[in-house]
Amino acid sequence: MTWSPDGMPLYALVMAGGPGTRFWPLSRRSRPKQLLPFAEGRSLLAATVERLAPLVSPERTLVVTATEVVEAVRAELPRLPVGNILAEPVGRETAACVGWVAWRLARSRPNAVMVVLPADHVIPDGPALRSALAGAAATAASRGGLVTLALRPTRAETGFGYLELGEVVSAAAGRPVQVVKRFVEKPSKERAEEFVAAGNYAWNSGMFAWTVAAIQGAIREFLPELAAGLDELAAAGDTLGEQEALRRHYPLLPKVSVDFGVMEKATSVWAVGVDFAWSDVGSWAGLSEVLPSRADGATLGDVVALDSAGSVLISDGPLVAVVGVRDLVVVATRDTVLVVPKDQAHRVKELVEKLREAGRDDLL
Amino acid sequence: MTWSPDGMPLYALVMAGGPGTRFWPLSRRSRPKQLLPFAEGRSLLAATVERLAPLVSPERTLVVTATEVVEAVRAELPRLPVGNILAEPVGRETAACVGWVAWRLARSRPNAVMVVLPADHVIPDGPALRSALAGAAATAASRGGLVTLALRPTRAETGFGYLELGEVVSAAAGRPVQVVKRFVEKPSKERAEEFVAAGNYAWNSGMFAWTVAAIQGAIREFLPELAAGLDELAAAGDTLGEQEALRRHYPLLPKVSVDFGVMEKATSVWAVGVDFAWSDVGSWAGLSEVLPSRADGATLGDVVALDSAGSVLISDGPLVAVVGVRDLVVVATRDTVLVVPKDQAHRVKELVEKLREAGRDDLL
Repeated sequence: MTWSPDGMPLYALVMAGGPGTRFWPLSRRSRPKQLLPFAEGRSLLAATVERLAPLVSPERTLVVTATEVVEAVRAELPRLPVGNILAEPVGRETAACVGWVAWRLARSRPNAVMVVLPADHVIPDGPALRSALAGAAATAASRGGLVTLALRPTRAETGFGYLELGEVVSAAAGRPVQVVKRFVEKPSKERAEEFVAAGNYAWNSGMFAWTVAAIQGAIREFLPELAAGLDELAAAGDTLGEQEALRRHYPLLPKVSVDFGVMEKATSVWAVGVDFAWSDVGSWAGLSEVLPSRADGATLGDVVALDSAGSVLISDGPLVAVVGVRDLVVVATRDTVLVVPKDQAHRVKELVEKLREAGRDDLL
Repeated sequence: MTWSPDGMPLYALVMAGGPGTRFWPLSRRSRPKQLLPFAEGRSLLAATVERLAPLVSPERTLVVTATEVVEAVRAELPRLPVGNILAEPVGRETAACVGWVAWRLARSRPNAVMVVLPADHVIPDGPALRSALAGAAATAASRGGLVTLALRPTRAETGFGYLELGEVVSAAAGRPVQVVKRFVEKPSKERAEEFVAAGNYAWNSGMFAWTVAAIQGAIREFLPELAAGLDELAAAGDTLGEQEALRRHYPLLPKVSVDFGVMEKATSVWAVGVDFAWSDVGSWAGLSEVLPSRADGATLGDVVALDSAGSVLISDGPLVAVVGVRDLVVVATRDTVLVVPKDQAHRVKELVEKLREAGRDDLL
């Protein structure tokens, strides 16, 4: 039997909607980041769902993705009931995605607790994640507010948002539950260093837990326009069917993140502190932390390297053969090869833009 | 009518035998360097034969290549009579190749003059080359010795052999004809600098002119074992047919270069001095001189580069997309991608060796 906090059914929402060009040319419109095989040969998405499974069964795991890739997502998750894979006709950011699923659950399982996770993070220690999520869900069930997982920062990263944490109010699965005093947008290097030194700041993980009632209440309070849109969507579903209702109403929902639109405004927000290894695999350079590392760098696929170091070498087809390269990203697919120094990997988007302008959409 | 020195028929031997791994992965056993499209989209071989054509007609141009690639060579040279493309069953270095063709010509055209050229050099100024070859052929016809084209050195290159030149004995097509005092093997950097400063040293171009009688005489004198082998080969051809004779006798010919085996030992050697632009396209790095150069480097095929410089970027199929790379060689084929810093491009052979050891002959 699946574990339930306080006898309330536990559901998971895995958000797998993002397109993203940061992993071009491996990622394409038809194969976004979460479908890339960065988790020991499996996709990040499949690894995320499997990591959850001992805590939340496939029957209670819902995956939201984009219509263009829904078939690929289904193929990736054969154990999930087909009806649990939900396709947004267009992406409307995380508040709409979370709200849509909460409104749906409110009808069938109004007393459910939800945990919410991105599909594209790497967390090698599955038991630690599940234990933390169980603690967060129990906290959400008992307190009725919004709960987030707070990652202990391991470096002064400027690419993440931070949480300022207040008093410890309880414990959950052996972890401290703290008041979240405020959300801080991506900081400067200086401020990030202050945060890490201060000790009462954590990385905002983008992983949440709340009851359906709590998130519905928060959306009604802080994003009334979204709540109204979700009410309309639900009503239209009754008369038109869900697909047609989505087609008409989903594109009209306000586009805002759940962090900015809800979490930063809410008053009852708690953090469950975690310190497991975690990566959001933000760019080619970030793969160094995630892929099997050899002396010559992090590699995936058919790679031969001589006298190389610090590089990310990825093949999705052709042999990648390198000699004497340092801190370089090389990615080879059947139709495209990317080469960029690791510290400039973020500039991939400039290439994508240039190709789009040149009308080379077949490569995007 | 084709030009003839002193009324003697002029033949060209284009040596297209070399396998070579320096241009792997673009070059393969089935597509050696001379078949690569480094001459404004045409192969080096086709460009060499076409460059000669106004001086030596296709009917008088003989191409020696390896049996494995003879079909590819024919496809590359549709204007050449099929019988003019000669296949060595195994490579036995340049003295055997030159000797074989000289012995053949001795039967049909004993009074011929031959010019001999590698198939894989780039010489943009065709008229200058033809004029120099005509001068060398005329010198060979009138003097009866061995003539070589001597390139005026433009840098203290350590990768070439040098000629020490003596007194000017005449002129040919407006160029000085000088005595060759000696051949010098590839020098140290210090000695190369001395040679360039001295002014009486030239690069050994590997391009020659001689009468059939002169080269036969020189081979008989300095390589008697080769001469005997070539006599046997010719005699066996009369009874067995040329193919069977080659199969049996060619592999037994001594393996020595015409430079080392004949030129360095001969006493009557003249040089015709030339100063046209020339490249032996010795490595990926050397392509910078030969390929169309843009700000981002020398490129061939489907390449998109942002903020890059000094690189050699080559596609034979996939798009090559680079950002921020400096002095890098990137070569992409359908099955293999090579990335190596330009100053380490010579290490490609180590990769090839590693793949051979790994049994990956399909990629070689």
